[in-house]
Amino acid sequence: MNEYALLHTMDSEYAYASSEHDLSIRLRCAKGDLEKAYICYESKYRIAGKHIKKPMKKVLEGRLFDYYAIDLHVEDVRFAYVFYLYDGKTYKYYSEDGLTDSYDFSQGYYNFFQYPYINSTDVVRDVPWMHSARFYQIFVDRFNIGNKGKDMSYVNLKWGERPTPKSFAGGDLNGIREKLDYIKGLGINAIYLTPIFSSISNHKYDISDYYTVDSQFGTNEDLKELVRDCHEKGIRILLDAVFNHCSEYMPQFVDVCKKGRKSRYYNWFVIDGDKPDKKKHNYEVFAFCDYMPKLNTSNPDVVKYFTDVAVHYINEYDIDGWRLDVSDEVSHTFWRDFRKAVKSARPDAVIIGENWHNASNYLRGDQYDSIMNYSFTKCCLDFFAHRSIDAEMMAMRLNDILARNNNVVNDLMLNLLDSHDTSRFFTEVSEDRDAFINALCLLYLFPGAPCILYGTELMTPGGYDPDCRRCMDWDKAGKAKKDEVFKLIGKLAGLRGKHVLSAKDVNVCSENCLLIVKYKKARTEIVLIINNTGKKRKCAYGEVKASGRSLTVNGKELV
Amino acid sequence: MNEYALLHTMDSEYAYASSEHDLSIRLRCAKGDLEKAYICYESKYRIAGKHIKKPMKKVLEGRLFDYYAIDLHVEDVRFAYVFYLYDGKTYKYYSEDGLTDSYDFSQGYYNFFQYPYINSTDVVRDVPWMHSARFYQIFVDRFNIGNKGKDMSYVNLKWGERPTPKSFAGGDLNGIREKLDYIKGLGINAIYLTPIFSSISNHKYDISDYYTVDSQFGTNEDLKELVRDCHEKGIRILLDAVFNHCSEYMPQFVDVCKKGRKSRYYNWFVIDGDKPDKKKHNYEVFAFCDYMPKLNTSNPDVVKYFTDVAVHYINEYDIDGWRLDVSDEVSHTFWRDFRKAVKSARPDAVIIGENWHNASNYLRGDQYDSIMNYSFTKCCLDFFAHRSIDAEMMAMRLNDILARNNNVVNDLMLNLLDSHDTSRFFTEVSEDRDAFINALCLLYLFPGAPCILYGTELMTPGGYDPDCRRCMDWDKAGKAKKDEVFKLIGKLAGLRGKHVLSAKDVNVCSENCLLIVKYKKARTEIVLIINNTGKKRKCAYGEVKASGRSLTVNGKELV
Repeated sequence: MNEYALLHTMDSEYAYASSEHDLSIRLRCAKGDLEKAYICYESKYRIAGKHIKKPMKKVLEGRLFDYYAIDLHVEDVRFAYVFYLYDGKTYKYYSEDGLTDSYDFSQGYYNFFQYPYINSTDVVRDVPWMHSARFYQIFVDRFNIGNKGKDMSYVNLKWGERPTPKSFAGGDLNGIREKLDYIKGLGINAIYLTPIFSSISNHKYDISDYYTVDSQFGTNEDLKELVRDCHEKGIRILLDAVFNHCSEYMPQFVDVCKKGRKSRYYNWFVIDGDKPDKKKHNYEVFAFCDYMPKLNTSNPDVVKYFTDVAVHYINEYDIDGWRLDVSDEVSHTFWRDFRKAVKSARPDAVIIGENWHNASNYLRGDQYDSIMNYSFTKCCLDFFAHRSIDAEMMAMRLNDILARNNNVVNDLMLNLLDSHDTSRFFTEVSEDRDAFINALCLLYLFPGAPCILYGTELMTPGGYDPDCRRCMDWDKAGKAKKDEVFKLIGKLAGLRGKHVLSAKDVNVCSENCLLIVKYKKARTEIVLIINNTGKKRKCAYGEVKASGRSLTVNGKELV
Repeated sequence: MNEYALLHTMDSEYAYASSEHDLSIRLRCAKGDLEKAYICYESKYRIAGKHIKKPMKKVLEGRLFDYYAIDLHVEDVRFAYVFYLYDGKTYKYYSEDGLTDSYDFSQGYYNFFQYPYINSTDVVRDVPWMHSARFYQIFVDRFNIGNKGKDMSYVNLKWGERPTPKSFAGGDLNGIREKLDYIKGLGINAIYLTPIFSSISNHKYDISDYYTVDSQFGTNEDLKELVRDCHEKGIRILLDAVFNHCSEYMPQFVDVCKKGRKSRYYNWFVIDGDKPDKKKHNYEVFAFCDYMPKLNTSNPDVVKYFTDVAVHYINEYDIDGWRLDVSDEVSHTFWRDFRKAVKSARPDAVIIGENWHNASNYLRGDQYDSIMNYSFTKCCLDFFAHRSIDAEMMAMRLNDILARNNNVVNDLMLNLLDSHDTSRFFTEVSEDRDAFINALCLLYLFPGAPCILYGTELMTPGGYDPDCRRCMDWDKAGKAKKDEVFKLIGKLAGLRGKHVLSAKDVNVCSENCLLIVKYKKARTEIVLIINNTGKKRKCAYGEVKASGRSLTVNGKELV
């Protein structure tokens, strides 16, 4: 038995509560090492005398590791356990002290594993509507001009021309409102907008007034109406929370620049010296952008100010959640208070962090619900675009991504192929329509909520920022409804709407160079098969009824 | 290279900040597998272009794993890194994606490890006075009767007779005050008292009034004077926080028993039905004790009530911290708010949880500072008492215990051989004085604060509760000052007072069946050598000057 590979840790993806009486336990072991894995458990106050033994199931097969799991509904929520493992040769117990031939339950209080008690505030909570969400990300300046009569003097990009970092194209909130039926026609039921508050930039990640919609994008009333229209059409809407940094024009920073240490906002920022000084680089900023001073998110006043902002737009504008910009640089204490405030304003508001890396330390029920799943993006790039990994490796890596988090979180992930911060995926696959289609199918049929960047349905190309932020091509969009990709997105969305595709049911594997994603349901199976090899790459997906023997795949030919 | 064994995780003992500019990075690998380990790091906004490479040091050798570590002082606290490892055959990079032959730093934003930003509220803070603390645990009813003229009608145990679970012997706070010089004579500089608030039991873990000292133990004024006297003598004092459950006579519970759901305290408890009903067992309790109803520590009102209690005794009575009873069953949200309140009342108040198991999920700077180190206790039982492990295994297990937590926490651990909840260690070693001495030396010279149970200095025997809670033998104590064990404890305390023995300097190993604990200091080395074999077990400890060649060990013969 490979003891090096065994891993089990508390309050993590390996042991978590999904309700006041539901525990999920996971164990990591070396790939192919175990033939059987059992959990031996009882109330920690009884386990010295007796215990229950139940088999665990192998649920994920990663590159190096297998993952066994079991979901348990328990009455006594003071839970003690050890594992009992068989590798085909010997049976061993696995406890806090490692592998042993025997285990003395009467002394277990020193070294059993435990979930000491399920406290309701420590439960990892679901956001049920996310299970059938299909997202559309909109970079507002480039989507659509709604207010035709507005002051267009700031616009310096002719619609359709290539943007530069300083381009303003004129898109606004009413432009989005006009296109809600178009968006809905794609099967989209959730929108995430890049920032919309007062800011001098086109991207508006440098915000000077968090309580006012930027006048280029419209008014606060326009936002209210946009949310109302979205909700009427069954579309949720998320805003972008830029709480890591602000604009140098935010009045609080201006005050500090003027008054230095005497400003009541001095500790809102991280300054080495009396006053911020651009020449001295003596204050912390986002990246190296001196116009974006970093906020001190350890300061309780800063926490209060921005959680108030977050709650304000939920209570007054009825938005459905927040995407959190540069969330990994903000303090854990900030996000814990933020979560408390947001969830008490609206329990099903979703909180999605921008963490490009393993974020399990933010995803244990106390901070965010989810992240933008850039690890998934990277896998898709390697498999579909760079073709640097084969189906077998792709399946293993996707399983390893699922192993990073608990299944409540896996079902809430925001999966994406690209964003305003990456090259367009259509460009990454060298405009290979088949590869693009394969990737879209995986995006839509992987556990978590798919999110496409505006224009994905038109196979919009584009390199890294600013090229990925081109203006939406409404001429092309007008003719796109009959296009294969446009129709595919609608069909995939329909499938997601019809079936709950949950991480707890998924099986990601490979067979004969095919990547296979399967969900076992009561009487049916949802299957995706991707052939990423050869010159013409293909895929098939659909519902497999247990009654029939053949794979019906919505009319598409089988690989 | 054994990839299965490699482990590195964020916001854990593997990556933590001990100040706004100090990061500690640890890496786990298979024992003996690596010859060299390097960290390649830079600001995450620069690492695509360049990075610094520094060697890491092997700091701990556990049973299966080695641990490499490096402490870094960084200016730019947005920290990205990968490891570069050599096993004697090949060099490999280790990133979030596992081992690779090469590493593309330009694409690192997808898979480097990162400590995204050091936020000051996420720093793991030290409690400096704990580094030289030597604790004495007192079970108040059995230590000493101070108020000789008090109403003794409740006392049913003649001092010195064997206690039963229901015995009352009459010890009180003034009894402790009387003995502070005795305690100080042992080199003790910190006291931890089992509960002292209103309660009908002798142990007082079932509290009915958290704001009043139990009349058997004295008055609130007596507590104030005890703390004052302690501080005058340079002794810190900790109280026992029983916030997991209370007494059935706590007014809030009485109110719920009377009014059921209509009581404003109904949600302070966890009740299945209208009213708590002992016959139905329809409310949660500590263990199976129906007279100790469990508190709902997810309820913000409960959190507020008990954090107020905690702060009250810090602000009004000047106590130095809290030991937390059954802390693992209390919610994480409770402890996070508790920490905030306690640390803002008194930044150096220490918070020590009663977690018998790996508690790293409570020890990341956001909840407790420390725990009662029962894993250390278990090692000492196995090595000194049961003799079921040899020096080599003992060293490895001690290293594995140090590997469970970060070094800030390791230095704050409350190490103990026994407590009011275990058999007396002197009984566990079958009253073998040499084994007892060996264990005491390890207790005092292991990283963390040593804690002895009252009477340890008298080699008090005793089985499991209630036998471990015998009355202090003051006749014996009067004659003990010349006894070897009594003197040894004072000497060891003196050594701890003179030298900071920190986990970051320790080397725990074995050689020729000897257990060796060494601390490398600038010009000297503190060494403990334990021979636990043979009929007459021995040990030696002392300071080794770099100038001399021989081990001066306070006059004791060498092993």
